[in-house]
Amino acid sequence: MGGRINRRNMIAGGAGLSVAGLAAPALADAQPAIKWRMTSSFPKSLDTIFGASEVFAKTVSDMTDGRFQIQIFAPGEIVPGLQALDAVTNGTVECCHTSSYYYWGKDPTFAFGTAVPFGLNCRMMNAWMYEGGGIDLLNDFYKRYKVFGLPAGNTGAQMGGWYRKEIKSPQDYRGLKIRIGGFGGAVIARLGAVPSQLPGGEIYGALEKGAIDAVEWVGPYDDEKLGFQNVAKYYYYPGWWEGQAMLHFFINLETWNALPKTYQAIIRAASSHANTVMTARYDMQNAAALRRLVKGGAELRTFSVETIDACFKAATELYDEISAKNPDFKRVYEAMKEIRRENFLWFQIAEASSDTYMMMQSRRGGL
Amino acid sequence: MGGRINRRNMIAGGAGLSVAGLAAPALADAQPAIKWRMTSSFPKSLDTIFGASEVFAKTVSDMTDGRFQIQIFAPGEIVPGLQALDAVTNGTVECCHTSSYYYWGKDPTFAFGTAVPFGLNCRMMNAWMYEGGGIDLLNDFYKRYKVFGLPAGNTGAQMGGWYRKEIKSPQDYRGLKIRIGGFGGAVIARLGAVPSQLPGGEIYGALEKGAIDAVEWVGPYDDEKLGFQNVAKYYYYPGWWEGQAMLHFFINLETWNALPKTYQAIIRAASSHANTVMTARYDMQNAAALRRLVKGGAELRTFSVETIDACFKAATELYDEISAKNPDFKRVYEAMKEIRRENFLWFQIAEASSDTYMMMQSRRGGL
Repeated sequence: MGGRINRRNMIAGGAGLSVAGLAAPALADAQPAIKWRMTSSFPKSLDTIFGASEVFAKTVSDMTDGRFQIQIFAPGEIVPGLQALDAVTNGTVECCHTSSYYYWGKDPTFAFGTAVPFGLNCRMMNAWMYEGGGIDLLNDFYKRYKVFGLPAGNTGAQMGGWYRKEIKSPQDYRGLKIRIGGFGGAVIARLGAVPSQLPGGEIYGALEKGAIDAVEWVGPYDDEKLGFQNVAKYYYYPGWWEGQAMLHFFINLETWNALPKTYQAIIRAASSHANTVMTARYDMQNAAALRRLVKGGAELRTFSVETIDACFKAATELYDEISAKNPDFKRVYEAMKEIRRENFLWFQIAEASSDTYMMMQSRRGGL
Repeated sequence: MGGRINRRNMIAGGAGLSVAGLAAPALADAQPAIKWRMTSSFPKSLDTIFGASEVFAKTVSDMTDGRFQIQIFAPGEIVPGLQALDAVTNGTVECCHTSSYYYWGKDPTFAFGTAVPFGLNCRMMNAWMYEGGGIDLLNDFYKRYKVFGLPAGNTGAQMGGWYRKEIKSPQDYRGLKIRIGGFGGAVIARLGAVPSQLPGGEIYGALEKGAIDAVEWVGPYDDEKLGFQNVAKYYYYPGWWEGQAMLHFFINLETWNALPKTYQAIIRAASSHANTVMTARYDMQNAAALRRLVKGGAELRTFSVETIDACFKAATELYDEISAKNPDFKRVYEAMKEIRRENFLWFQIAEASSDTYMMMQSRRGGL
């Protein structure tokens, strides 16, 4: 062991570095060999989303010299993509990688863990989770489903999706059959749309066959891989229902509680790292993908302020109605609103003015 | 050990969870008891910046059941704040928490690791570091100083600082004695300012005595603690020299290379987590601090586009001049520029349009 320690610091530096004997009994408790199965809600082809679970599993393995192994399974290998949470609740698998908002049909409170329309952006979601009590607050709710949840990747602000026909006013949502993730569907239904929540691998076929008229998934890099540009022409922004979207690792609560504390700390740090890496991966890829899409014929469109205003109004009414009868929802909504109010105030000062200047230089060709 | 594992999953679930015997010799290599000393460049009073080093040390300790201990020392306890890097190079301590740009006088390439004027924002810096090869690229340079560096917290976009007199045009920088961190000083000097780089604990006194006319530090929460609002009235934004500012943990290179691979993985993940937490802590605090400062008499001002344009021109000329004679600087500058060009293009679409709508609602009182 001595050969692996920096001799120079030990001898010359006298810098407090010390090598003590190993406490074998403590180690036996701290690092048992463990294998978990993780079922994913996302197609393996998406190195961004699916990749976050791989980063997580590798980080855990690297930190434990391979003693803690997490094997990841694609949707359908163990359970279908949208049954990932149930498989963890039931103990079919130890953990899953999914979006909590897929389960808003069970309880709309699930929506906050991923994204709600007109919610936070990526920075703010991290602020809430890591320093605003968000992880604990959400887990107070998740424990009803016998799972413990941690952040597991964030897409950043999403695009508004692919449409066969233009959306020029709120009226154009009427009768629109759209695949939309999470709670955005509940809001858009108030404007007359017909939302569905197909998993990633099934969307293209539905759009091609005309079973749906439009689809939102994530953004340029993922959307290009799934091929939506081939079956719908208009590419809208922003996805007002997903100013960010955070994924979750859910772990069976009993399994989590049984983990040695060192392993809990390792899982938490690996999850935090995977959460960062997923956003970084998108940010490295989206610009080039968007250029390719536009070159290939995609037509960029932005929703009108009139349209977004109508959606904002519908969303706020819906939140208030649910809050009146669902105390869990109300508690999490109020917490989110405080982060939102404070941060969209502050971000207008240094962040937005700095970014705006740089975007002006971008348009000038100065970058 | 069996008592700490989820029996239900082992028996009923058959979910691949297994408990194997412990490989004691491998463990002995993997988790020796280690104590490191970390010297910080930052005052203990700043729970944001100094706090990031505490989060890092605690995360490492928690993941190793206390076998890997990192003790943090305030500036002056071992070496002065701006000699942190040298102390690591020399092996006086194993590691430090500092800003790489403090050392741009040794080589301007050090600036990129923290921030350069008109560089990236926080999201983009993370993209570069974690998925754009930034960590490896910077370490190719840092190894000349016998250190290994990892991200260690990010402030986000900073404020432009506190001024006794208003800055209305580029001419107002002439003769201005300003404390400014890092490479911003080299740019602002081109406009006639007289920059200095006092460490955090010495700035207030210098401003009070009139030894300097202005100071930039970070943003509302830290600035309020250091009391600058009591000695200068005008609070400018944005800090065009710090659209983000990332700190570093520097570890003596020989010490890093001697670490077991599991400990290297643990240090990397703990650093990544601390990097996230520091930004989250600022984002939870800055809005309220800014409100208090404005209520207490601080007058918010924004730099004119004419002023920022002059600084952008000076910065670009300086980068080109240094690039012509410093290959390290040129290599890192070109890499940063590519991230910058791609991301400020992409961020204009979904991110900025989503944030802009929410800021409009903020001004309407809708949040």
